[in-house]
Amino acid sequence: MKLKQLVVALTAVALSSGALAQVKPEQQIKWRQSVMQVQGWSMARIKANIEGTYNKDQVVQSANILQATANGGLGSLFPAGTEKGKGWHDTEAKPEMFTDGDKVKEVAGAFNKEANELAKVAASGDAAAVKAQFGKVGQACKGCHDKFRVEDKK
Amino acid sequence: MKLKQLVVALTAVALSSGALAQVKPEQQIKWRQSVMQVQGWSMARIKANIEGTYNKDQVVQSANILQATANGGLGSLFPAGTEKGKGWHDTEAKPEMFTDGDKVKEVAGAFNKEANELAKVAASGDAAAVKAQFGKVGQACKGCHDKFRVEDKK
Repeated sequence: MKLKQLVVALTAVALSSGALAQVKPEQQIKWRQSVMQVQGWSMARIKANIEGTYNKDQVVQSANILQATANGGLGSLFPAGTEKGKGWHDTEAKPEMFTDGDKVKEVAGAFNKEANELAKVAASGDAAAVKAQFGKVGQACKGCHDKFRVEDKK
Repeated sequence: MKLKQLVVALTAVALSSGALAQVKPEQQIKWRQSVMQVQGWSMARIKANIEGTYNKDQVVQSANILQATANGGLGSLFPAGTEKGKGWHDTEAKPEMFTDGDKVKEVAGAFNKEANELAKVAASGDAAAVKAQFGKVGQACKGCHDKFRVEDKK
């Protein structure tokens, strides 16, 4: 993704907060927690393929889910009024997620970039390249979690 | 290849559909319930765009999520041993989901087809065509829910 496309995409994320503004905070938080779970499933599935028998179709499926959700306008699931609250469980988003827009854009942009690249590499079927790129996606996940997710107390 | 090797190889293929077979049923059920939520979010967001101000980027984002998840190998989240149990809540999958493979393939195939078409139509930016195709995706969702989801008692 070129810089201009990235800026356009991120602007779209910023503007997207309106469409579902009336939806209850509890549902918005459930949705974003669900996206994280689906991304977790996709990462776990790719990892299992890298460490076990490599199945290209499975890796492509999961990489495509990561790509689509990474580029899916997740910012719209963090509207004002959802800083605290419970979806499936108490929100784990730190207050800074709602105030530090520049850093959010930075970590989201990094995740988009690495997820897009993973989808490309997965389609090639090159397991070694997938393994390397999978590591970069994991780092991008961690980059956001370290900054914006409260430490898991469960 | 000797017979024994062949059997080992084929077993590996068969097992590959269960790359995450060792994951706890509770987590598998959470994952599939989360996929349903993410699809619900995507449908709600497209609906809001159809009924309100139409934003092509938002619709493309959500249609791409529907497409990627529809084609994402969801069947692997319904392994034996998860017929009953609790993820975020008690599973709403009917027993037939685990026994009527032909019907599962039929409704899943219909959903894949309509979701793929929606992603195509969304990319065109034709709001009227999106509205029509959105209705078909909704019917495909309902086709599966009617057959395989227990009635919502919540």
